[in-house]
Amino acid sequence: MTALTRSSSKLTHAGAMLILEAAVRAADAMGVPQCIAVVDEGANLLAFCRMDGAKVLSIPSCQAKAATAAASGKPTGTAPAESEIKLAVATDGRNTNLKGGLPIIVDGVLVGGIGVGSGTGDQDRDVAAAALAAVGLAA
Amino acid sequence: MTALTRSSSKLTHAGAMLILEAAVRAADAMGVPQCIAVVDEGANLLAFCRMDGAKVLSIPSCQAKAATAAASGKPTGTAPAESEIKLAVATDGRNTNLKGGLPIIVDGVLVGGIGVGSGTGDQDRDVAAAALAAVGLAA
Amino acid sequence: MTALTRSSSKLTHAGAMLILEAAVRAADAMGVPQCIAVVDEGANLLAFCRMDGAKVLSIPSCQAKAATAAASGKPTGTAPAESEIKLAVATDGRNTNLKGGLPIIVDGVLVGGIGVGSGTGDQDRDVAAAALAAVGLAA
Amino acid sequence: MTALTRSSSKLTHAGAMLILEAAVRAADAMGVPQCIAVVDEGANLLAFCRMDGAKVLSIPSCQAKAATAAASGKPTGTAPAESEIKLAVATDGRNTNLKGGLPIIVDGVLVGGIGVGSGTGDQDRDVAAAALAAVGLAA
Repeated sequence: MTALTRSSSKLTHAGAMLILEAAVRAADAMGVPQCIAVVDEGANLLAFCRMDGAKVLSIPSCQAKAATAAASGKPTGTAPAESEIKLAVATDGRNTNLKGGLPIIVDGVLVGGIGVGSGTGDQDRDVAAAALAAVGLAA
Repeated sequence: MTALTRSSSKLTHAGAMLILEAAVRAADAMGVPQCIAVVDEGANLLAFCRMDGAKVLSIPSCQAKAATAAASGKPTGTAPAESEIKLAVATDGRNTNLKGGLPIIVDGVLVGGIGVGSGTGDQDRDVAAAALAAVGLAA
Repeated sequence: MTALTRSSSKLTHAGAMLILEAAVRAADAMGVPQCIAVVDEGANLLAFCRMDGAKVLSIPSCQAKAATAAASGKPTGTAPAESEIKLAVATDGRNTNLKGGLPIIVDGVLVGGIGVGSGTGDQDRDVAAAALAAVGLAA
Repeated sequence: MTALTRSSSKLTHAGAMLILEAAVRAADAMGVPQCIAVVDEGANLLAFCRMDGAKVLSIPSCQAKAATAAASGKPTGTAPAESEIKLAVATDGRNTNLKGGLPIIVDGVLVGGIGVGSGTGDQDRDVAAAALAAVGLAA
């Protein structure tokens, strides 16, 4: 018989808030205010914070980073140059190759993504990685 | 001489997170998962949480509620019936008259808005009001 | 105790109109009709003028320049080439690296941005800089 | 011979700024901060001001009011109820029947529109009418 459903694992909002708060602490420690988004495996927003002084135009871009990482299972900033703009345009900007997005993988299962923006690309990625490390996940 | 600037008060991200967390607790106590958004006085997103089981299509609508309350300084759901649809369309859906948005007023100054969505309109408004009360603000 | 608000400084509409009028005069003196936008620190439009003969498609682009400068605190046209297109697409075109946007910084506080468009990139930037200088601000 | 062109009359930016400034004065006198837009006969933005305390969500809606009045040659708020929403949706929100938009008619020629928003519909219309009267035009 064909199974109509499959068992799956979903990121909880409590988990997303833990990751978000860890990212805020990491950005505070770095002295760089950030916009931070956490999305689930469907690239839908779970948790968000824009820190005092972070850029308002990073509100959409950090969400795009989180969505891209959740959809691809890979860090943003690693796509081949020849496809990154085509993917961005074909997705109305939701797929981005800006650094600062990391997949959230729990027990080997891709359950979402985190996207950080307002610093340099490296600062953004470092805050995302620190947030995942704070809850015991690999970046 | 014309003054280039005026002194103002802005909602902090720490304050927005307090209000967000209070809303999550109120929704938990009510047993109704919610999407919750907090925006600043310029209607830009500050903090967001989608609770487990809340509707994905409430992600944009709770943000519209928060933006509308922040822009108007009034609860959503109170606009005259003859203008509510026209306002929504003229603002590309950002102005909404769905219940569940409340202005955030601190020391008499309008500093933002909270929008809640996924329950009934009354549940949404009650969660927003409980969140404001939890940080000592009037609904 | 977490503070709910922080004190801030906002660009007045009277100040924005002064800057706008100074930009119009500078563009007139240069003989190049321009579109000019002034936005606040939340990247929301405060003042705008399209001069006779300026390009209609500069209406959105000068607003994007103003928003980008207001959000980043830096002149547009200075972002690294490897990120400028990605940032533009990830923000639905609101973040641009076209020359002609300058942050508006009063007493050390970033309170908004001016964006100018319809001339060459250098003409646009020069008009923006002349407008800020006319009200005693650094470009 | 078929004429390829026709002579036309266009609103100047200097004229648009006069109307804008008169609207700001009228709103000030009324004690109601407003968003005010002036567009040309092509419904393209010519001049704009958001006064301190005016609603950010009126930024798009006052532009829609101005565009509607410029396109129709009639005050907004007078369209038949059975078509107003259909027109709004078919124009992606640019055609609105919210009160506060007036055509700008100079020497019998429709050259643009003014749109005002942030007060009640009647306050919005009164500010628009006062602005036209201040430059010797009929509302």
